[in-house]
Amino acid sequence: MADLASLPAPDRSFASDNSAGVHPEVMDALLAANDGHALAYGEDEHTARLADRFRELFGVPCETLLVWGGTGANLVALGTMLPGAGAVICTESAHINVDEAGAPERVLGTKLLDLPSPNGKLVPEQVEAQAHALGVEHHAQPQAVSITQSTELGTLYTPDEIGELADLAHDLGMTLHMDGARIANATAALGVDVRACTVDAGVDVISFGGTKNGMMYGEAVVYLNRRLAERARFVRKQVTQLPSKMRFVAAQFNALLADDLWLRSATHANDMAARLYDAVADVPGVVLDERPSVNSLFPTLPEAAIEPLREWSPFYDWDPAERQVRWMTSFDTTEEDVDRFAAGVRAAVEAGR
Amino acid sequence: MADLASLPAPDRSFASDNSAGVHPEVMDALLAANDGHALAYGEDEHTARLADRFRELFGVPCETLLVWGGTGANLVALGTMLPGAGAVICTESAHINVDEAGAPERVLGTKLLDLPSPNGKLVPEQVEAQAHALGVEHHAQPQAVSITQSTELGTLYTPDEIGELADLAHDLGMTLHMDGARIANATAALGVDVRACTVDAGVDVISFGGTKNGMMYGEAVVYLNRRLAERARFVRKQVTQLPSKMRFVAAQFNALLADDLWLRSATHANDMAARLYDAVADVPGVVLDERPSVNSLFPTLPEAAIEPLREWSPFYDWDPAERQVRWMTSFDTTEEDVDRFAAGVRAAVEAGR
Amino acid sequence: MADLASLPAPDRSFASDNSAGVHPEVMDALLAANDGHALAYGEDEHTARLADRFRELFGVPCETLLVWGGTGANLVALGTMLPGAGAVICTESAHINVDEAGAPERVLGTKLLDLPSPNGKLVPEQVEAQAHALGVEHHAQPQAVSITQSTELGTLYTPDEIGELADLAHDLGMTLHMDGARIANATAALGVDVRACTVDAGVDVISFGGTKNGMMYGEAVVYLNRRLAERARFVRKQVTQLPSKMRFVAAQFNALLADDLWLRSATHANDMAARLYDAVADVPGVVLDERPSVNSLFPTLPEAAIEPLREWSPFYDWDPAERQVRWMTSFDTTEEDVDRFAAGVRAAVEAGR
Amino acid sequence: MADLASLPAPDRSFASDNSAGVHPEVMDALLAANDGHALAYGEDEHTARLADRFRELFGVPCETLLVWGGTGANLVALGTMLPGAGAVICTESAHINVDEAGAPERVLGTKLLDLPSPNGKLVPEQVEAQAHALGVEHHAQPQAVSITQSTELGTLYTPDEIGELADLAHDLGMTLHMDGARIANATAALGVDVRACTVDAGVDVISFGGTKNGMMYGEAVVYLNRRLAERARFVRKQVTQLPSKMRFVAAQFNALLADDLWLRSATHANDMAARLYDAVADVPGVVLDERPSVNSLFPTLPEAAIEPLREWSPFYDWDPAERQVRWMTSFDTTEEDVDRFAAGVRAAVEAGR
Repeated sequence: MADLASLPAPDRSFASDNSAGVHPEVMDALLAANDGHALAYGEDEHTARLADRFRELFGVPCETLLVWGGTGANLVALGTMLPGAGAVICTESAHINVDEAGAPERVLGTKLLDLPSPNGKLVPEQVEAQAHALGVEHHAQPQAVSITQSTELGTLYTPDEIGELADLAHDLGMTLHMDGARIANATAALGVDVRACTVDAGVDVISFGGTKNGMMYGEAVVYLNRRLAERARFVRKQVTQLPSKMRFVAAQFNALLADDLWLRSATHANDMAARLYDAVADVPGVVLDERPSVNSLFPTLPEAAIEPLREWSPFYDWDPAERQVRWMTSFDTTEEDVDRFAAGVRAAVEAGR
Repeated sequence: MADLASLPAPDRSFASDNSAGVHPEVMDALLAANDGHALAYGEDEHTARLADRFRELFGVPCETLLVWGGTGANLVALGTMLPGAGAVICTESAHINVDEAGAPERVLGTKLLDLPSPNGKLVPEQVEAQAHALGVEHHAQPQAVSITQSTELGTLYTPDEIGELADLAHDLGMTLHMDGARIANATAALGVDVRACTVDAGVDVISFGGTKNGMMYGEAVVYLNRRLAERARFVRKQVTQLPSKMRFVAAQFNALLADDLWLRSATHANDMAARLYDAVADVPGVVLDERPSVNSLFPTLPEAAIEPLREWSPFYDWDPAERQVRWMTSFDTTEEDVDRFAAGVRAAVEAGR
Repeated sequence: MADLASLPAPDRSFASDNSAGVHPEVMDALLAANDGHALAYGEDEHTARLADRFRELFGVPCETLLVWGGTGANLVALGTMLPGAGAVICTESAHINVDEAGAPERVLGTKLLDLPSPNGKLVPEQVEAQAHALGVEHHAQPQAVSITQSTELGTLYTPDEIGELADLAHDLGMTLHMDGARIANATAALGVDVRACTVDAGVDVISFGGTKNGMMYGEAVVYLNRRLAERARFVRKQVTQLPSKMRFVAAQFNALLADDLWLRSATHANDMAARLYDAVADVPGVVLDERPSVNSLFPTLPEAAIEPLREWSPFYDWDPAERQVRWMTSFDTTEEDVDRFAAGVRAAVEAGR
Repeated sequence: MADLASLPAPDRSFASDNSAGVHPEVMDALLAANDGHALAYGEDEHTARLADRFRELFGVPCETLLVWGGTGANLVALGTMLPGAGAVICTESAHINVDEAGAPERVLGTKLLDLPSPNGKLVPEQVEAQAHALGVEHHAQPQAVSITQSTELGTLYTPDEIGELADLAHDLGMTLHMDGARIANATAALGVDVRACTVDAGVDVISFGGTKNGMMYGEAVVYLNRRLAERARFVRKQVTQLPSKMRFVAAQFNALLADDLWLRSATHANDMAARLYDAVADVPGVVLDERPSVNSLFPTLPEAAIEPLREWSPFYDWDPAERQVRWMTSFDTTEEDVDRFAAGVRAAVEAGR
């Protein structure tokens, strides 16, 4: 049996898709965009071109606002969806609830009505159960529903599931937000047109991720429901998310959307996660859920294996009490990375016996 | 007399230092930083190196937090300086008061006590006059003073002036913030060590600008007063200013601070502004203030010249009622750009007679 | 010449109309309302009756929301007038700007665009000058204009002046708020129907004062523009201004509005201020503005007279640097109170020579 | 069997202790306080006397701030306990979480970490489980624990239970808030000195209720931990909770605390709830929990009985899906009220068969 210390660690860890750098095609786009002067704050041709590109992608006259990061994208989106400081229905595991340090509450003053969900997905019954608060002045007023696609737990909503949530939200006078930090992975995994889960299903606003899919920085807030975009530019500026040299955000997205780079990259990351699943599925003591659809795995490992493995190649805990960790792949994960890491897992578990 | 239309426009306009792209040395640093994986959110070697670099620069064990943009840097800084939701003393023309869309009020809930100042600078008497509110529960409680160096009007505080403001602020139980979006231009113009106007003068927190000085994006919040940094990381995340792939911000700053690139670039921009001043000083009808110290001019032009000139090469109004405009230079403004633009000014004014 | 110490001080000081207690008719109403149980939060007959009474008073189907206090009333009003976190245009001396400790900024996240006004009144030109910010994402977006009637300086808007502000505000897409903490004094002083300065002039929302006019506590937010009231109940609750045993607020207002008690009380207070003016106008060294219209005087006194007089009968400084103080009358100020106080002023000034 | 329609309804319903009016001794105090002028905002003798009274009650040099209402009291308390915009640990059923319309989030910008609790009480293990977030910038930082005594479900913390929570909170660098809207009922029920569950147990700040216990309006925020009171006056003003004619709040509390009126009233209310429990315990189809300790019952009723009974004498739903309702007694509930209501319950259930 190989000793972990003697094995070559993967060149790229499985810690996070945020650990990856910039896709070469995106970097080329940045270099190309660095040509002379361009008016700031989006008054440039790259940004104009991107707006058109998103209109083509979704097939509707949507409005696109570029922002720095994911938390910012979510705040811009939700900040325009809550007239009169309403509340947001989401899952307990939603990024806005768990991983944004209370930014929605602090910056937007909104209450998150966070509902338990073992698989990270909301169901219509949960939204319906919140409707009793509507019109009762003692209770926070739910005005938006926020879902994550793919979810923080690596699960996926089908187009029908999203459609049902959207219909219900609209019936109740609410609007539907999709946190699409990994919309590329979801779209690639579902194998459907991106419109199926978004514009056709009735989504109002998308936080469309770029950074986790090979960009250096930058996310887009796409208003499929243009009415909500009316005051979005002011909200973006107020929540500190107006990039000055915006052409560089736009240029990256233009590269990502050209020739389906966003889907190609995501498909590759998804495939690498599946490959990793297959490679460790038979390791005794490694407990896995279903074969992953997107680019994350949440295995449970033997206690003794975790720290040695992590020191050899870093990754994050998911639920330490349950010995559950998270492994993520990215656009640049190679087959060799996977195979090396799987060998390391095997060795670490073996050694821990 | 040359006709404006027949003149070659400058390749780089004088609209804003935000219109400039990325300095080649900074772009090289971005390319170099794109090497494999690096842990996100600042757990990378580039960020660690930058923290040391800022400690060397200021000669004190300061804390540095990297953020996306300038409004964000100011919010992180002020957000850590206002225990119990106090107020901020600043000038009426301060960027935080005029050009941040009410973000300090919206995100921090703070009141800006904005004081009139024809030259964009605060004086101790103005701060002192606000002290009457201290302890009176009906009034907003000033807890921080914010100055801009160089100011929004292109003026400069001397080290002594800053020292007096800092001493007074500290005597009154307040802390002193410096919005240093153009601290490089100020430092280059004053010809003093950067410590003279900052750490030696008693400044507590600096928003240290990068974007306007040749970076693609990114600013630094430098806590010379480390006590104030205690909760800064949480504030940064809450106000949506935690960059995920932080190495790319750090790598740019590392390039900027290496070999004094930040000062070389700023000196060049300042020189180009002075050259432009000299080149148009004798144009009849063009009214200028003093020869510029930093990289901005605020000339008053004949009404008829403004629009034709702007169409030929873009720039922004400053005070339309007074026919005052703003011209800015940047790290990449060339002597030819200046000479072309000056010729255009001359032609536009001539034609407008 | 009488010695101050030997003179009888007035039984009721001229410190503030907030120093007065409760009008006997209002106290009777409180006693009468304390009859058995009544549903809380406004589901009682007193509150229903008051809503009707305000509809009669203004002659339009307005909506009325009762709140605890004046700052709260202003926050509820403005909190419903600022879609998308806009800004408020007001004077520098406005209560919301000076005397609410930054509550609008803290609680609503709004920026106050506070404009200088020697007489405490806004003019249309000032509002117009703010319109340049509309649509520019770098600037806070003015969405409401707030005026105070009568102003913090004791001046009055005529119906025409309010009408012009309202028309302009509406033309610019804004709405008009009236801080009517002393609307009774203003209405009594103008001698016009209360509708002239409010509903007929185009005011959208009024903070209708009760406490300063003989109530124990309680103010009303009256929505002449009912569209703005849509979410007002939720804002009221969120800003902590929903009284539980609401019948007691309503009962007080019902007493105030019955038989014009509100105007009779205010007229009396106004008269007492005029009487005080007349009684001290010829005291050498006492500098007065015009004869007061409402219930406040802002005299300038000789330095030496101020503290002895204040110790004898309390009042507040207005502008200490200018030796300007404020004297206020209230519904229960008697002619004897005035005459005693005037005699004291005379004696204090005399003694200070 | 008696027909419901033929039975005399109770003179005072069991809808809420907020439906009760003002205790006669409190009303007398209001009348007595309405004597001449008194300086506003707490500069009066009633307020001074109350501060002393609370110091006597708790036996420590506590600071007391009077406010209008209960939501306001909680916001003042929490608003001083969250340096750097931290989060609050509470139960899912906490008033601050469910019945304040999102005010803590909107006004304080805080996140409530609301934990499930079938009996409305927090246990140390729940607080401990949140500690993992401390120091992790992606997560909201818990800085205060808030408990309700007696809880929203009518349960009680023992002194030991509170002591354990306080010790743990302090060990983790947090402070402990007690929402004591019904602290009188709790203290009466426990039969211990009020200090046992508060100052001796380590509570830092109490929202000390008045309105639900026979006052017209008014609550007190009592800082047993005086350090936290440092900026409390400013927070109180900012969250719109500074009463102008404060003597009337103080006078009511002075009456309440004199001769243990607060405990006598609460004991009576508690007794009436127990009497109601006993009177309906044997009604078939009425499902009750344990005999109530304080002044609320949460019975489950047969579906058919609920609406007829409610029309006859009003009360509120608790959990409609479970046919659970809430009945509350108050200081003025009479034995006759209880007996009449019990008879009505019996008749309504009988008729519904």
